[in-house]
Amino acid sequence: MTTTVGILGGGQLARMMALAGASLGLRFLVLDNVKDACAGQFAPMLMGDYTDLQVLGDFMQRIDVATFDFENVPASSAAWLAERKPVYPKPRALAVAQDRLAEKSLFTELGIDVPPYRDIQSLNDLRNAVRDFGMPCILKTRRLGYDGKGQFRIRTEADIQAAWDTLGAQVERTGLILEGFVHFDRELSVIAVRTPSGAFRAWPLTENWHVEGVLSASLAPAPVTPSVHEQALAYARQLADALDYVGVFALELFNIGDRLLANELAPRVHNSGHWTIEGAETSQFENHLRAVLDLPLGATDVRGVSCMLNWIGAMPDPTPILEAQGGHWHDYGKSARAGRKVGHATVRADTPEQLAAVLETVGKQLNRSDQVAPVIDRLRKDY
Amino acid sequence: MTTTVGILGGGQLARMMALAGASLGLRFLVLDNVKDACAGQFAPMLMGDYTDLQVLGDFMQRIDVATFDFENVPASSAAWLAERKPVYPKPRALAVAQDRLAEKSLFTELGIDVPPYRDIQSLNDLRNAVRDFGMPCILKTRRLGYDGKGQFRIRTEADIQAAWDTLGAQVERTGLILEGFVHFDRELSVIAVRTPSGAFRAWPLTENWHVEGVLSASLAPAPVTPSVHEQALAYARQLADALDYVGVFALELFNIGDRLLANELAPRVHNSGHWTIEGAETSQFENHLRAVLDLPLGATDVRGVSCMLNWIGAMPDPTPILEAQGGHWHDYGKSARAGRKVGHATVRADTPEQLAAVLETVGKQLNRSDQVAPVIDRLRKDY
Repeated sequence: MTTTVGILGGGQLARMMALAGASLGLRFLVLDNVKDACAGQFAPMLMGDYTDLQVLGDFMQRIDVATFDFENVPASSAAWLAERKPVYPKPRALAVAQDRLAEKSLFTELGIDVPPYRDIQSLNDLRNAVRDFGMPCILKTRRLGYDGKGQFRIRTEADIQAAWDTLGAQVERTGLILEGFVHFDRELSVIAVRTPSGAFRAWPLTENWHVEGVLSASLAPAPVTPSVHEQALAYARQLADALDYVGVFALELFNIGDRLLANELAPRVHNSGHWTIEGAETSQFENHLRAVLDLPLGATDVRGVSCMLNWIGAMPDPTPILEAQGGHWHDYGKSARAGRKVGHATVRADTPEQLAAVLETVGKQLNRSDQVAPVIDRLRKDY
Repeated sequence: MTTTVGILGGGQLARMMALAGASLGLRFLVLDNVKDACAGQFAPMLMGDYTDLQVLGDFMQRIDVATFDFENVPASSAAWLAERKPVYPKPRALAVAQDRLAEKSLFTELGIDVPPYRDIQSLNDLRNAVRDFGMPCILKTRRLGYDGKGQFRIRTEADIQAAWDTLGAQVERTGLILEGFVHFDRELSVIAVRTPSGAFRAWPLTENWHVEGVLSASLAPAPVTPSVHEQALAYARQLADALDYVGVFALELFNIGDRLLANELAPRVHNSGHWTIEGAETSQFENHLRAVLDLPLGATDVRGVSCMLNWIGAMPDPTPILEAQGGHWHDYGKSARAGRKVGHATVRADTPEQLAAVLETVGKQLNRSDQVAPVIDRLRKDY
């Protein structure tokens, strides 16, 4: 009667999912195309290509339900699995979230504001769109981009040709989309979860800071007006219902004054929701699994205020975080590599003032004052 | 530079230790004498006898430091390992905690009150001691007892012979001790942790209810007077320092009015500390590992009020707990068996009133009102 959850992808998201799912009495089987995927340290793992039907067949035989730790799962593999075992989120939701154009069309259909965007088929399309949107603007691949990869920012006339030279060859494989640049006040995300029976919960909004396209710090709950909060949660719910979504997802938003523009939907547990492990009654990882198994969802109430700091490339000295009141360390068990997400820390405190004070100390001790500065600034000015 | 922690014993304590240690970037290797030990679902496992030097040698080669998930580790195996790798808690602390007589002698030496006790070598010793202590009193094995096993309660003259018939044969193997019966108001435990460098922290006191010698429910923080709280923590600290203890331990206490009597020391993470996973800033499992690795200890502050309910024999229906505000489920991945600890639940709430209300609902839904009744009673009367 034991339930085994199969996870396609064996990175830190799969790892934290398995660690959270143990207490539900679940077993796991991870599939990854590299041997030393870090989830394999705490869950049985199969190695093989995601499109290899022999591997997929073996995987499928040994699991009861499948989910993902990354959104770029080949659509054909997701579909093949879904014909044989329950797969959550369902391949359709995955397909929409994998394609920036489909995603933005859905946002628009549902009346959710988005920055200007246009499908780009040729250099001529690109020239016309840049003229219409103005600069700066960003050429992106429609599919297979993440963490700032597959993007080219256009600031000058000359950049148009350069962008096309860099990404034009992708027009057939991934498609291209031009997005107008938005001068937002802040970036927010909603982490939400929905079950097959339609139960829905969201954690309070998270504010996010990116450096070079990669998440650097998150603060939750984000200090926003009640109307922004309600609007963001309503958007998340509309999307989840429209896609008959199952599991956790992140909706990334730009906030300008009282206005919200949807940036993208990540169809999985999300880096900006890692703070929920210590900062909320139930973590995104546990609620994702509860949803996938159609169990009652856990409470999403916060416990005080939390800041998540990402460790990129290599782990810093753990001592300052371990010594900090409310400091929690997350080493993903990966080897160091430039640009790689190798871990994070969450600092939880009962009040914004306490959190700011701890972050200030930790930032100095780690020589990372730049990383914590915008969070401290927000904590001291806007709570 | 990866650190591998070896754990002797692969039960739920090892399992929860591994789950907590993943975020510290640790790897684990579990040694157990049964193949399906539940920690093996989330950590690599070796199977073999704890006294087999070939097995121990293999285990030792693959780890950097060793710890235990049960106190009855053969002393010779602990000593053998300790000559080759750091072993925490150290074999001496383990030896004292394994022997009720040595333990009570140490309590007495340190000026810690204990119930009357006497070393029993013969039926005649037993008769004399029962006459001195009065009835009821309890004959126990000095070593290898746990969860009410290896005990015989003496209520009548006739029980003396019956107790001797049952346990007398153990006088050579484990030794015997007679303990006077204490009419206590409540059972308390201190969960505390100490590092090799002597750093010490304790979680607030836990109140415990046993059924047939096995822990049934725990409530933390226990509603006690400041003087009881200070006394209990002082006892724990004295003991830890005297034993040069490293890691988490539980000190079980009887509370009578403002008086505390030490019952026993459990040299490991403890069932009455499971609530710390959700109910404290840092769990006993994480702090045990931090101590074993001589890392800074995490904060032991509580988050609201928590009640832990043990599941013995078989897991109940998870739905009421999963639906409860602040309900957290812990299935150890074990098969059902009479008397076996197969899981627990923790219900966490911000206030005692909220916790009482949730427990009342959950107790009814699970048809376990008896199990929650004493906790609800305490919450409603003594906070």
